[in-house]
Amino acid sequence: MSLNTYGHLFRVTTWGESHGPALGATVDGCPPGVPLAPEDIQVWLDKRKPGQNKYTTQRREADEVEILSGVYEGQTTGTPIQLMIRNTDQRSKDYGDIAEKFRPGHADITYWQKYGIRDPRGGGRSSARETAARVAAGGVARAALAQLAPGMQVQGYMVQMGPHRADPSRFDWAEVERNPFWTPDAQAAETWADYLDELRKSGDSVGAVIECRISGAAAGLGAPIYGKLDTDLAAAMMSINAVKGVEIGEGMGAAALTGSENADEISMGPDGPVYGSNHAGGILGGISTGQDIVVRFAVKPTSSIMTTRQTITKAGEPAEIVTKGRHDPCVGIRAVPVAEAMAAAVMLDHLLLHRGQVGDGPRGRIG
Amino acid sequence: MSLNTYGHLFRVTTWGESHGPALGATVDGCPPGVPLAPEDIQVWLDKRKPGQNKYTTQRREADEVEILSGVYEGQTTGTPIQLMIRNTDQRSKDYGDIAEKFRPGHADITYWQKYGIRDPRGGGRSSARETAARVAAGGVARAALAQLAPGMQVQGYMVQMGPHRADPSRFDWAEVERNPFWTPDAQAAETWADYLDELRKSGDSVGAVIECRISGAAAGLGAPIYGKLDTDLAAAMMSINAVKGVEIGEGMGAAALTGSENADEISMGPDGPVYGSNHAGGILGGISTGQDIVVRFAVKPTSSIMTTRQTITKAGEPAEIVTKGRHDPCVGIRAVPVAEAMAAAVMLDHLLLHRGQVGDGPRGRIG
Amino acid sequence: MSLNTYGHLFRVTTWGESHGPALGATVDGCPPGVPLAPEDIQVWLDKRKPGQNKYTTQRREADEVEILSGVYEGQTTGTPIQLMIRNTDQRSKDYGDIAEKFRPGHADITYWQKYGIRDPRGGGRSSARETAARVAAGGVARAALAQLAPGMQVQGYMVQMGPHRADPSRFDWAEVERNPFWTPDAQAAETWADYLDELRKSGDSVGAVIECRISGAAAGLGAPIYGKLDTDLAAAMMSINAVKGVEIGEGMGAAALTGSENADEISMGPDGPVYGSNHAGGILGGISTGQDIVVRFAVKPTSSIMTTRQTITKAGEPAEIVTKGRHDPCVGIRAVPVAEAMAAAVMLDHLLLHRGQVGDGPRGRIG
Amino acid sequence: MSLNTYGHLFRVTTWGESHGPALGATVDGCPPGVPLAPEDIQVWLDKRKPGQNKYTTQRREADEVEILSGVYEGQTTGTPIQLMIRNTDQRSKDYGDIAEKFRPGHADITYWQKYGIRDPRGGGRSSARETAARVAAGGVARAALAQLAPGMQVQGYMVQMGPHRADPSRFDWAEVERNPFWTPDAQAAETWADYLDELRKSGDSVGAVIECRISGAAAGLGAPIYGKLDTDLAAAMMSINAVKGVEIGEGMGAAALTGSENADEISMGPDGPVYGSNHAGGILGGISTGQDIVVRFAVKPTSSIMTTRQTITKAGEPAEIVTKGRHDPCVGIRAVPVAEAMAAAVMLDHLLLHRGQVGDGPRGRIG
Repeated sequence: MSLNTYGHLFRVTTWGESHGPALGATVDGCPPGVPLAPEDIQVWLDKRKPGQNKYTTQRREADEVEILSGVYEGQTTGTPIQLMIRNTDQRSKDYGDIAEKFRPGHADITYWQKYGIRDPRGGGRSSARETAARVAAGGVARAALAQLAPGMQVQGYMVQMGPHRADPSRFDWAEVERNPFWTPDAQAAETWADYLDELRKSGDSVGAVIECRISGAAAGLGAPIYGKLDTDLAAAMMSINAVKGVEIGEGMGAAALTGSENADEISMGPDGPVYGSNHAGGILGGISTGQDIVVRFAVKPTSSIMTTRQTITKAGEPAEIVTKGRHDPCVGIRAVPVAEAMAAAVMLDHLLLHRGQVGDGPRGRIG
Repeated sequence: MSLNTYGHLFRVTTWGESHGPALGATVDGCPPGVPLAPEDIQVWLDKRKPGQNKYTTQRREADEVEILSGVYEGQTTGTPIQLMIRNTDQRSKDYGDIAEKFRPGHADITYWQKYGIRDPRGGGRSSARETAARVAAGGVARAALAQLAPGMQVQGYMVQMGPHRADPSRFDWAEVERNPFWTPDAQAAETWADYLDELRKSGDSVGAVIECRISGAAAGLGAPIYGKLDTDLAAAMMSINAVKGVEIGEGMGAAALTGSENADEISMGPDGPVYGSNHAGGILGGISTGQDIVVRFAVKPTSSIMTTRQTITKAGEPAEIVTKGRHDPCVGIRAVPVAEAMAAAVMLDHLLLHRGQVGDGPRGRIG
Repeated sequence: MSLNTYGHLFRVTTWGESHGPALGATVDGCPPGVPLAPEDIQVWLDKRKPGQNKYTTQRREADEVEILSGVYEGQTTGTPIQLMIRNTDQRSKDYGDIAEKFRPGHADITYWQKYGIRDPRGGGRSSARETAARVAAGGVARAALAQLAPGMQVQGYMVQMGPHRADPSRFDWAEVERNPFWTPDAQAAETWADYLDELRKSGDSVGAVIECRISGAAAGLGAPIYGKLDTDLAAAMMSINAVKGVEIGEGMGAAALTGSENADEISMGPDGPVYGSNHAGGILGGISTGQDIVVRFAVKPTSSIMTTRQTITKAGEPAEIVTKGRHDPCVGIRAVPVAEAMAAAVMLDHLLLHRGQVGDGPRGRIG
Repeated sequence: MSLNTYGHLFRVTTWGESHGPALGATVDGCPPGVPLAPEDIQVWLDKRKPGQNKYTTQRREADEVEILSGVYEGQTTGTPIQLMIRNTDQRSKDYGDIAEKFRPGHADITYWQKYGIRDPRGGGRSSARETAARVAAGGVARAALAQLAPGMQVQGYMVQMGPHRADPSRFDWAEVERNPFWTPDAQAAETWADYLDELRKSGDSVGAVIECRISGAAAGLGAPIYGKLDTDLAAAMMSINAVKGVEIGEGMGAAALTGSENADEISMGPDGPVYGSNHAGGILGGISTGQDIVVRFAVKPTSSIMTTRQTITKAGEPAEIVTKGRHDPCVGIRAVPVAEAMAAAVMLDHLLLHRGQVGDGPRGRIG
C-alpha cells in the first residue's frame, strides 16, 4: 500500500472526490482473458449505493460504472482497466459551514494541516464516497477469482452495532440478503433496526463491527514476513474510512487464551489436513491454512452528527458545530460491500503473487 | 510492505533464520548525517534479548550487532546500512521431532505447504528471532528521529496478560523500566508474575496485549488513502509474529460508541489545536493530529507448549506432539521492544514521506 | 517503473487503448498547492497532437483533456489527479487485416503471444496514442516544477532523421518552434522535409534521434545506486514506443574516449563549481552536477508501411502484409513532446525524492 | 528500481562500500527448491575478481561469498538470501588526496553535494566494487533460471575498446573464455592488448562497449508499458557504474534505417514463428519474441587516471589532481560479468512476473 494504490501485482489506484465530476479506480494487473462486463461490477456497486433504505444517506447516486479501458470484446486484455463513476448528486450548498469550521472526529482538520488546501465539499478525498471506487475494483477482482479460484467465496456481514452483538448460534447465511444490515442473525437485525431508528431521531450516529469470511482459499497463500496475508488484510481493512481496529480469527481475544486453548489441533481428512477449531482465522505465519479466513473490523460512528459540538475555525476561533447534510447514522452498514471488495482484491493479489513466486498450487505435499 | 521489506522511503529488509549463521536488517533510506554507533542499536537489542529473566526463553544469545555498511566516521552516509547479528546458541538437537510433525497453531505446516521446503530448526524464518533484526533497524530509526524530530517519543508497554488487564488509573511511566513486563502498572506486574509462574509450571503459555504510544509527533503525518499512518502502523504490528488484532485509539471498542461520545472536541491552545479527549488515538483520516498516537495489539499464546496436542506428520499420519526446547511462556513480553521498533520505523518513514510530498512542517495554518 | 506506472513519489499510471472510448493518466503524488488548469496541460497535448502537418498521421483527435479529480479552485490538493482524453476519431475499419496477420516489427505478435487476447484496433495498448497520456501527466509535472524549481527548463528537439544529422554549430533555440521537426537546426529541417516527402511517397518510414536538455537543475538530484537520475531517465525514454537506444552525455561515443579526454575539469565560479566541458551530460554517479542534463534516444522507423512484407497469420499460414491506415512516416517527430513530458516527470520525481531523503537543497557545501 | 534495490518480484538490494568491512546483496523473491551452493555463486565472482591479469586493478580481493540465510540443506527456502563478501585488501592510505579534492569525471563531487558526507576511500558506495554484490546476486538468478528455464543462456562479451571494434564476422564463441577481454573476436583481443599496454604506460584509461546476448528465452516475457523487458534491461545496464549509453538490437543505429529495412520478416518454423532478421534485438513492444535478446552498452573511461587534471577542493580552491592507487585502465572488461549478472536477474524477474500475471507459458497460440 502506498499513497493512493494498493496491491502487489493486482494494483488498484483510486481517484476522485466526493463532489468532483467523477471518481474511479485504475486497476492494473488483472490477468488477461477474464470475462468482464459492466454488469459484473454494477451488481456490487448497487449493494453499496447510498439511499437504498432509511438507514443510509439520502444522497442519490446512480453509481453507474463505465469501463473505459482494458476490456475487449467482453474479456480483459491484461492492460489497465479504468473504471469511472460520474458523480450526479452533488448538493454542495449543504456543506458551507464546514469549509470554515472543523468537525470533531473528522479528517478535515488533518487534511487542512497536511495539505494547506482541501476540497471541503462532502469531505473531498476523505469522503466515504471514495469506497465506491474500491467496490468497483473489487468487482474486477471477483471476476478474476471466479476464473482462477472458482471455489473461493467472499462474504461480509455485520456482527455488532453499537452495544448490540449478533449471536453466531443464530447465524443463517440466507438471512444476509434479507435485511438492510447484511447480517446472518435475523433477530439482531430487528434489534438494530429499532436501535437505529431511535438514534436517527436524535441525530446521533453509532459504530459497528463487520466480519468478512473467505472460504475455499487454498493453503499456501501469503508472503511472509511483511506481505503476510493477515497483514495485507489488516491494512486493507484499516484503510477503509472510520476503521479503528482489525482482528484475524480470535483477534484481540487471543490475548486472554492459553496456548493449550488456542491451538487448532490437526487431523488428516480425505483432501488434506483438517483442523479441530479455527482460532487462527485461517492464517498461520501469514500463510493461509485452507480453513475459512476470518477478518473483522470496527467502524467508529460517523462524525457528522446533529448534536452540537465544540470546535474551532480555520482562524483559530472557538465555534460550535452541528453537521447538517445527508449522512449515514451507521456507516458500518455500507462498509460491508467495501470489506468484501478489499478482501477479494487481497485474495486475488496473493493468488497472483503466489503463482509468481512459487508456481501454481501448494508445493509441500502432506500424506 | 512487500515480501521481506517494509517502508516507503525508510525501507527495511530483514533476513535470516533462527538457526542459521546470522540474521540482520538491510536498512535503506536513512538520511545522511545521523550520528550512529553500534551502542545506539545495542541498547534496544539488549531490551529484547532472550534469557534476561525467568519469563523469557532460556536461549542464550549475545545479540551483538555489527554495522557493516552505511556509516562513516560515526555518521550515516545516506547509503544502505547493513546490520548483522550472529547466531551463537543454536542447539538444533532440541528440535528433532518438529521436523516431521506439525505444531498446532504454528506456521510450520503452512510454510511446508507453501514452499515445500523449510528450515525446521527453531521455526526457521517464522521464528520470533527474526524480530531481533527489526529491533536493530528500529535503533537506526530512533537515531534519525532524534535528529529530525527531537521531541518525538515512542514508548511500548504491556497492558494485558491472559485475562488480567492493567489499570490506566495506576499508570506510572517510571514503573515501565522496573518490571520484566514493561508495564506502567506495578500492581499488574505482580499479578502477572504470579500468574506466569503458575503457567510455566504447567508448561502452558498465554497471550497478551501491548500498547505503544508515540508522543510529540507533529500534525500532518500520513499518506491517505492507502498509506495512512494508522494503516501502516496496523500493518507493522500485524506483521509481528503471533499478532492477531490491532487497534488505534478506541479500537474495537469504537463500535459501541455513539458519534457524540466519540467526537474529540477541539479548542485553541497556545500552540495550536487542543483536543478534549483522544478517542481517535491521534489519527484522523490517516493523518496525525498532533495528539499522542496510540496503537495496541494482541499477541496470541505461543504454540510451543508442553501440553500434548493432536496433530499429523508430513506423511499425513496422526501423531501427538509436545514441544520441548526453550520457549517463552508469554511472547508478548518480548514483543514490547519490537513494537517500539516498528513504530519508530513507521514514524520516520512518514516523516520522510511527508517531507518529500509536501515539504517540511504542516502547510495549513490554524489561527 | 512497474507494469503501467512510473515514478517513485510522483507516480503516473497511464491507461487506455488506441480505439477505446478514452485514455488517460492517473497522477499520484503531485504536491498540493500547485496552480493547475486544463490549459496548462492542453498546451503540451496540442504540441503532440496528430494531424497538425503533413508529416504526422492524419488521424484527427482533439486530444482535449479533462481534469476529473485532484484540483480544487484551480490548485492541486495533493490527492490523485485524473486526466482523461476522449478518443473521437476511431476509424477501426481501416485495421481489419491486422487482426489476423502480424506486422513485422510491430508488437502485435508479442502481445498475442503474451496475453492470448488483444485489441488489434490501432495497436490497442501498444499504440503510440498512449503517449498522449504521458504528455498530459508531463503537463502536471511542469506545473509543479514551475513552483518548486522555477529555473528548471526542459527542452526536447530532433537531432537526426534517417541518415541526416543536425549540426550543433548551427543550433538556434528560437528555431525549435518554427519547424515541424522541433529542431534548432533550420538547415537540417529543410533537408529532412525533402527527405520525408520522398519517403512518404514511397510509403516507407524512417527512424530519428531526439535529444532532451534539462537546464537549471540543482546539483544533488538522483538516488544511487538503482534509482540513479540517468537510470530513471534511460528507463523513461526506453519505455516510449519504438525507442531502441538511450544515451546520456557522450553516450555510446564515450567508449571511444580516453580518460583524459572524457574528464570534465572543474573550476570555481561565483555560484559554485563550474565545468570546462560536459561529457558527463550533467550526471556523475547517478547524481546531477548542476550542468545541463543531456539525454538522447533513437526511435526506430514505424512498422506500419506500405511496402509489402512477408509475415504469418494467427493460424500460422504465410501471408503478405501492407499496412494501410493513417500512420506517421517518422514517429520520432511526435516523440519530442513525449520525451519532454517524461523528462519533466523524472525531474519532479527526483526533486521530491531528494527532499524526502535528504531535505531541501544540496547538503555538502563547496567553498 | 528504487534507491538500492532492483527487480519486481526477484528483488536485489546491494549494500556496502569499497573500504568498509564487507559488502553484499540481500536477495528476496528467489523461488524455493533451487539447488544453491556457495560454489554456484563463486564461479561468477571469480570471473569479475580484480587482479586476475595485468589489465585490471591490482587490488587483491578473494571475493569469497558467504551465504548467511535463505538456503537449507543445499536448497533455497523461498526466504531472503543474504550474500556477504568480506573486504580484505583495503589499503586506504592510497586515497588520502581524494578526500579533499574532487576527481573530474568522478561521483565524489556529486555524492558530497547530495549527502554532505561520504566515505572517500576508494569511492565509497560509488565504487565499482559494489558490482561484486550484483555478480553474487546474479549467481542466484542463474541457479533459479537453470531450474525454471533450462534452455536460457546469458553471454556477455566485449565488442569495442576505445576506437577499436570487434568484427562479428570473426566471432567464435569458444574464444570468449580464452582472452582477458571476454571477446569472441580473437583478432580484436590482440589489437586491444597492444592498445591497452600503451595506454597503461601513459597512465590513461579508455572506454568500451559490452554486448550481452540472452538466447533461449520464451516469447511473451515483458510487462508493458513501463516494465517493458527492454526498459528493465536498459535500466539494469545504465545503473552499472560508468555506463553512458544502452542499446537494444539496432540501438542508436535504428534511427538511420527505413521501415522496410528494419522490419524483421516472419515465417512459420516447426516450433513457431521464425524471423528473417533480428533488428529488434528480440523484443517488440517490450515483450520477448523468442529470438535472441541483444543488449549493448558503452562504458566511459575511468576517471582515475595519472594525467594531471584541473579541479577544486572542498574549500573551493583550485587544485591539480593525479589519481594514484590501483585502478582499471579499462573498467569495461570487468563490466562483462556484471552485465551478465544484471541480465540474468532481469530475465528471472520477468519470468516470475509473467508467471504471476499471466500464468506459465505463452497464452496466444500461433498455428
